[in-house]
Amino acid sequence: MTATVDPRLSINQATLKYASLAEALRATAQNGVQAIGLWREPVGEVGLKTAASMLADSGLRFTTHCRGGFFTIPEGPARRAAIDDNRRAIEETATLAAAGAEGSTAVLVLVVGGLPEGSRDLVGARSRVHDALAELAPDAAAAGVTLAIEPLHPMYASDRAVVSTLGQALDLAADFDPSVVGVTVDTFHVWWDPQVLEQIARAGREGRIATYQVCDWKTPLAADVLLSRHYPGDGVIDFASLTSAVLDAGYTGDIEVEIFNEEVWATAPDEVVRRTAAGFGAAVSPSLVAALDSAR
Amino acid sequence: MTATVDPRLSINQATLKYASLAEALRATAQNGVQAIGLWREPVGEVGLKTAASMLADSGLRFTTHCRGGFFTIPEGPARRAAIDDNRRAIEETATLAAAGAEGSTAVLVLVVGGLPEGSRDLVGARSRVHDALAELAPDAAAAGVTLAIEPLHPMYASDRAVVSTLGQALDLAADFDPSVVGVTVDTFHVWWDPQVLEQIARAGREGRIATYQVCDWKTPLAADVLLSRHYPGDGVIDFASLTSAVLDAGYTGDIEVEIFNEEVWATAPDEVVRRTAAGFGAAVSPSLVAALDSAR
Repeated sequence: MTATVDPRLSINQATLKYASLAEALRATAQNGVQAIGLWREPVGEVGLKTAASMLADSGLRFTTHCRGGFFTIPEGPARRAAIDDNRRAIEETATLAAAGAEGSTAVLVLVVGGLPEGSRDLVGARSRVHDALAELAPDAAAAGVTLAIEPLHPMYASDRAVVSTLGQALDLAADFDPSVVGVTVDTFHVWWDPQVLEQIARAGREGRIATYQVCDWKTPLAADVLLSRHYPGDGVIDFASLTSAVLDAGYTGDIEVEIFNEEVWATAPDEVVRRTAAGFGAAVSPSLVAALDSAR
Repeated sequence: MTATVDPRLSINQATLKYASLAEALRATAQNGVQAIGLWREPVGEVGLKTAASMLADSGLRFTTHCRGGFFTIPEGPARRAAIDDNRRAIEETATLAAAGAEGSTAVLVLVVGGLPEGSRDLVGARSRVHDALAELAPDAAAAGVTLAIEPLHPMYASDRAVVSTLGQALDLAADFDPSVVGVTVDTFHVWWDPQVLEQIARAGREGRIATYQVCDWKTPLAADVLLSRHYPGDGVIDFASLTSAVLDAGYTGDIEVEIFNEEVWATAPDEVVRRTAAGFGAAVSPSLVAALDSAR
């Protein structure tokens, strides 16, 4: 079974939402997956030092920490608290990346935040995202951490992320060093974008693809649209064209599968990891193999 | 009551989904609204000739006919049937526009269609939209009808419309005369787009704003995301900036309110028209007045 697991697959911990950190690390490693992306809450439950030690013991590579952001809050105590919390997330990311196996990456995924309560000012909210990046960039640089702006699907523009396209994320990142501010390319969020292939190529040219995440899109959407993510291959996303574009753009890192889905969450973690590996193997791995072959 | 209704407001018939054509015309006219956009199904229920006569008797301007499209079907009998049906829709649009009061416009709104069953080929689907436009453009030109490509919100990209942004719609329209192929600017579908203001300006320069439709966006989305449209002012859309951009782009036509929403549909038509007029008056009319003032 484990022989068939793609060596570049990473399980994002959100895919195993109800598993503890220990259980997530165990299920991931025991099923032959070599890498994992972690979430702050389960790491916080055991404490950073313990989490880092558990991660080191697992032998897994660490791929991303999820998540920072909440940058659209207007100036005041709530914004200060968010900025401080992002500083802690940067430190956590550095610590976990150092604890992971060789090839780990220090990437903090950023969900930038939606419109503040009662506001209709998208332009202002976006400008506050830029301000927050400027404030945190020195901390990230000092810690050797890349902040990975994640454009979220436009259906989340009002309540989760006022950054909705890869092009917009790259425009925001442009003022910063690519080792400090990059982007997250997540198939679920960008697959529909008529500019996606050219913006992936641009992200590569600009050295900004900090992480590539895959999961599938299928309709009807779940009643809570946040939970509409599916195993690769179960929906309509053309993983071949997106994955080839990401590889052509020079991305050589691990590839996370991150699924928010009540049905998946209700499944036993071992089964979820195996299903994820199988879906990834069928939908994503062929592009990885083809790229290796053509490079030979 | 009717004294306060904006003269540029048009009620899109979908806002009164369960009303017959007769009831929709009556509720619209009796509550002081001067224009209406119709849907094919209720027009078909009474027959085109009768519908045209009823529209003429109402004294209302006719603003759009909804809808053509379904252009992504691969070649074969189903595609031929869709093309033929669009030809009928073009004829209906011309007939109704001629029957409406002075200032009526012959605009057929196009919802281009999603991915065909089992397909992941967005690029191919989009190319078939272009093919369909090329096939129908001569018919539209002969009938004096403008085909108005409607970019739909990206959450509908897989099942309703592979055209998701105004920029993409304008790219598709570029090969055709602006009097024959234009675009629909619908606030619900485009409000989130970081390029929306520049693309509205471009649409104006290229003479392609065939209709401007308004309704609001609010979360959480309805369980059926198709039914998440709200009265202007009830959500987070900044109608001032979008409306000013549309006016600055040279649009002088009527402005439709089109709401798909079970609660709205469960309300009596007279009440819906009055609520729509009030929301429009508060959220949209100030921009219209400001534009008039600055033009003086």
